[in-house]
Amino acid sequence: MSTDAPERRTYSYLGPAGTFTEAALAQVPEARGQIWRPVSNVGQALADVVSGRSDAAMIAIENSIEGGVSSAQDALATIPGLRIVGEYLVPVRFWLVAHPGASLDDIRAQKPVGVAGHPVAYAQCLGWLADNIPDHEHVVASSNVASAVGMLDGSLPAQVAIVAPGVAEHHDVEVLAKDIGDNPEAVTRFVLVTRTVAPAAPTGADKTSLVAELPKDEPGALLELLEQFSTRGINLSLLESRPIGDALGRYRFVIDADGHVFDERMADALMGLRRFSPNVVFLGSYPRADRQVVHYPQRYGDEAFVEARDWLRGLLAGEPEA
Amino acid sequence: MSTDAPERRTYSYLGPAGTFTEAALAQVPEARGQIWRPVSNVGQALADVVSGRSDAAMIAIENSIEGGVSSAQDALATIPGLRIVGEYLVPVRFWLVAHPGASLDDIRAQKPVGVAGHPVAYAQCLGWLADNIPDHEHVVASSNVASAVGMLDGSLPAQVAIVAPGVAEHHDVEVLAKDIGDNPEAVTRFVLVTRTVAPAAPTGADKTSLVAELPKDEPGALLELLEQFSTRGINLSLLESRPIGDALGRYRFVIDADGHVFDERMADALMGLRRFSPNVVFLGSYPRADRQVVHYPQRYGDEAFVEARDWLRGLLAGEPEA
Amino acid sequence: MSTDAPERRTYSYLGPAGTFTEAALAQVPEARGQIWRPVSNVGQALADVVSGRSDAAMIAIENSIEGGVSSAQDALATIPGLRIVGEYLVPVRFWLVAHPGASLDDIRAQKPVGVAGHPVAYAQCLGWLADNIPDHEHVVASSNVASAVGMLDGSLPAQVAIVAPGVAEHHDVEVLAKDIGDNPEAVTRFVLVTRTVAPAAPTGADKTSLVAELPKDEPGALLELLEQFSTRGINLSLLESRPIGDALGRYRFVIDADGHVFDERMADALMGLRRFSPNVVFLGSYPRADRQVVHYPQRYGDEAFVEARDWLRGLLAGEPEA
Amino acid sequence: MSTDAPERRTYSYLGPAGTFTEAALAQVPEARGQIWRPVSNVGQALADVVSGRSDAAMIAIENSIEGGVSSAQDALATIPGLRIVGEYLVPVRFWLVAHPGASLDDIRAQKPVGVAGHPVAYAQCLGWLADNIPDHEHVVASSNVASAVGMLDGSLPAQVAIVAPGVAEHHDVEVLAKDIGDNPEAVTRFVLVTRTVAPAAPTGADKTSLVAELPKDEPGALLELLEQFSTRGINLSLLESRPIGDALGRYRFVIDADGHVFDERMADALMGLRRFSPNVVFLGSYPRADRQVVHYPQRYGDEAFVEARDWLRGLLAGEPEA
Repeated sequence: MSTDAPERRTYSYLGPAGTFTEAALAQVPEARGQIWRPVSNVGQALADVVSGRSDAAMIAIENSIEGGVSSAQDALATIPGLRIVGEYLVPVRFWLVAHPGASLDDIRAQKPVGVAGHPVAYAQCLGWLADNIPDHEHVVASSNVASAVGMLDGSLPAQVAIVAPGVAEHHDVEVLAKDIGDNPEAVTRFVLVTRTVAPAAPTGADKTSLVAELPKDEPGALLELLEQFSTRGINLSLLESRPIGDALGRYRFVIDADGHVFDERMADALMGLRRFSPNVVFLGSYPRADRQVVHYPQRYGDEAFVEARDWLRGLLAGEPEA
Repeated sequence: MSTDAPERRTYSYLGPAGTFTEAALAQVPEARGQIWRPVSNVGQALADVVSGRSDAAMIAIENSIEGGVSSAQDALATIPGLRIVGEYLVPVRFWLVAHPGASLDDIRAQKPVGVAGHPVAYAQCLGWLADNIPDHEHVVASSNVASAVGMLDGSLPAQVAIVAPGVAEHHDVEVLAKDIGDNPEAVTRFVLVTRTVAPAAPTGADKTSLVAELPKDEPGALLELLEQFSTRGINLSLLESRPIGDALGRYRFVIDADGHVFDERMADALMGLRRFSPNVVFLGSYPRADRQVVHYPQRYGDEAFVEARDWLRGLLAGEPEA
Repeated sequence: MSTDAPERRTYSYLGPAGTFTEAALAQVPEARGQIWRPVSNVGQALADVVSGRSDAAMIAIENSIEGGVSSAQDALATIPGLRIVGEYLVPVRFWLVAHPGASLDDIRAQKPVGVAGHPVAYAQCLGWLADNIPDHEHVVASSNVASAVGMLDGSLPAQVAIVAPGVAEHHDVEVLAKDIGDNPEAVTRFVLVTRTVAPAAPTGADKTSLVAELPKDEPGALLELLEQFSTRGINLSLLESRPIGDALGRYRFVIDADGHVFDERMADALMGLRRFSPNVVFLGSYPRADRQVVHYPQRYGDEAFVEARDWLRGLLAGEPEA
Repeated sequence: MSTDAPERRTYSYLGPAGTFTEAALAQVPEARGQIWRPVSNVGQALADVVSGRSDAAMIAIENSIEGGVSSAQDALATIPGLRIVGEYLVPVRFWLVAHPGASLDDIRAQKPVGVAGHPVAYAQCLGWLADNIPDHEHVVASSNVASAVGMLDGSLPAQVAIVAPGVAEHHDVEVLAKDIGDNPEAVTRFVLVTRTVAPAAPTGADKTSLVAELPKDEPGALLELLEQFSTRGINLSLLESRPIGDALGRYRFVIDADGHVFDERMADALMGLRRFSPNVVFLGSYPRADRQVVHYPQRYGDEAFVEARDWLRGLLAGEPEA
């Protein structure tokens, strides 16, 4: 019925079906049964949100091996009107696939073997490849799905492809080996991004994401930025520098801080940061993927802030102290 | 007429007439023509204010040679209901006086010479005495006026007395030498104390006085206390430790900070201090005696605080950033 | 003559001829007339140095637009036995090339146009492409030279290629447009790496490169790391976090500090860092590419360190102070 | 025999016999059987040491109620050639004495009662006096022994005297009440001072005393001074400001730091302080009176400093890292 259509929400994600990003989106209960829109890069996913074509975008933001995803960090830092509303973790597992019916021994007999793979994926499987297919050549693919597609349709000169496990559900491939990544603990962190909205209520296990520039030519400026958090008992789980782009040596910092902007100490720290930094972007307060409850020194609880405000009010009014 | 009586205000000060404290009180325009009540120590002066016997008390708080006046600092830290409303500077000058008609040569002929003096005054005149009356004995007096009185009435075994210059106006003495202090730049800082009132409006050249205890057994606690000010661009002109008195090694800090509690940055620092310190006493915001305008980094001006609050309000409401 | 051969030095660089890395190597006077060995990635270049196959490797370390080159930073942090001995800056300029005789208008007529380019290069030319070839498709190439080679030999489905200017000297191409990068100030920083050697003498315009891990689970650890430099008057020109790789939220920091390890203050800071950090790697002290003289507070000059050591020696010996 | 005379050592102390200072000197095993020289003030005691008239001086340095003894702190800060070699604690107990045969009831019958007492002693007995001799007048005495002497010989107009307990051993007095101090935990800290000598070997429970001026007109200078200790894991047990005396607002800091100058971290901190401060005085490293073992983070142990020096030496020599 036509009345249903407008109610379905659209989620943009780095496609096609089978990517790690799709696996992240699959963790979002609200996204089930909605429209999933595959796009080819982060910029397109966020542009979909800004333009209203999509209601939300799932994007990779950090990899435990590779570090921050620069393009995503830079996009969030510079595109106005966005807000992070959720965080998701996806284990990074790589499979080696080939045409249906192929075997690893057959393929090894052909020398050299063309291995299609996204450069990041390829870099994380070097150990396995050195042990199992030492005589190979890397064929660059643009994603962990495109590697398989290119191998299958012949557009990439490769006999095997490194893929995300989800690919096997969507394409007719022979799985030659599972979990060929060098680091079995590897994980990628994703965030779900919408247009600017009010933050959801705190859960007690939240994080707050920010981007802040340092004042120009102030030695010790980074120390002062960090003190905005430390003097309010707030721990940082992420601090990454990114070039602003106007000159070498000029940076903005991508920050994840433990807690929620509805916490008094976080609100206070944000105001301190706003006064200090020539440019600070609030990206959102949202539940942590790991659901770890945030701990903080008792003297930075909400009641301490409320009490201090009351105390100040009394001082200003000339009331005698209790 | 009886209608006048209730309107006159009473000012307690360390008397008798002629002391440096009286000279400080003479600097207060509002005190002219009012009742000046001499008392014998700081405790009594402040007790007068607390009990309502006096409207205000003038007390010495710091000497450029001797340092903080511990008894005054401790009294302000522990007696509730008081507020500093003004600051005054009095140059510390000492005169040597004797019985009328006496001469320095006559007196030197008597050996040893008894020199009556308050211990602090005596300590500041040691150089002059060594040069001019090397063969002398110190006779302890309880004030810079009592030294003269005791010498004159014979209750102190002294031929000469070290006095504040004001003594010569009130007592019949021979001034043998003026300005015998070893440090011509010596100055004493006084504060005028009333019962708790709302702070007067800022003048742009104000200071704020506080006393704060450190949290127990926290290494780095003093660093964190100082950061409450430095992260808001506030300079401290005084930082003195005083024992809390319950155990060796436990201190409270007496603080004078540049600026007024009506300044946003100072109000914010006070709230930070209140959250951090187990016991903080606000003693008042009042014009500096030296009328030096307070300078601070532009990013800590009131407008930065107002702007940051507005910004935070927008974040919480989910408004898009400008 | 055979006696010459052993004396020639070998320099590995990201090839083939025409890359920005080759342009960096061309800035090294000592490399002229020596053997230049093109390799296909940073890992190979550094492995050449470690194994002794090459005497030095030129590698890209930071781009003013893209930020730190993660693979280079991670390699320097984890491969032992390397030392940075020089720094070079190369402006990042991109040209658009095609088959000989082609014109931009002809090519635009074919829709869509395949544009071969390394992903980083492509990302920096998006503005120009949107204006001039809006209807195009990106064809991923593995370098700024491979894009042209693939276009020319037909292995990449592209009519044009984004290349480094040096490519035009080595390949028969038609230059359709010069300087198509969106940011004319873009620059890449390269470092020349050798096996571990003693640092060269200071020039007064030096920098020192380091990698340091933070102690585990210590809130405020980054603050303490930064204080190792700030308390010795040392400014940092680079601070980047990189995941250690064992778990999300565990970082090492890549640091460039102004000054030379032969400077007393830098040697002292390095020892402080060594005591503090569970793992610190000294990458070298070498002349800055911009030749800017390092300024520092007078009290951190070498003579202050020498004087303090002498003073301490006197204390320990019980000598009276001067 | 004449050969013995030169071997006896002389100890100056604030006399006469019976003072708290004498009680402190009685705690020094080496002082038993030596010459004890009573003097009338701290300046004289230290002058005896400087001139060689005495081998050592026992002086009060801090009182748990009154705070630092300013005159002693200032003398140690400004007189060159001195070194603290030991620390001693004496409980502060006050007794009330009168002429032999007198009783408290008899004395109360005389109104008002003259109470002879050193001002500091008197201030610490206000509670007991208010309860037991409310109608009294304070008669200033110059010491806790002089109060009794003056009462006994009639030179002070007093019927009772506040004294140190030791007085009862040396003078014929009636003890009317013991332990009349308001704070039963009160204690005074004394130090034993000699001419400059090399520090004695560490005991593991040592402290180091220093005096340091801040650089002029440097906001944040005190923070930087404190960081010299905190960045080396050193805790401070005392931090007191004292006016330098040249102008209001100019301070030196009296510091007691946990540890011994033979500890690498303390030596390093002292050198850092020497570079930072325009004037730093090392007063000595000596065993703590409370014998509490000093704890510090493992990474600041001696071996960490030795290891860091070796590491640096290797770097400078170009040795490959282990």
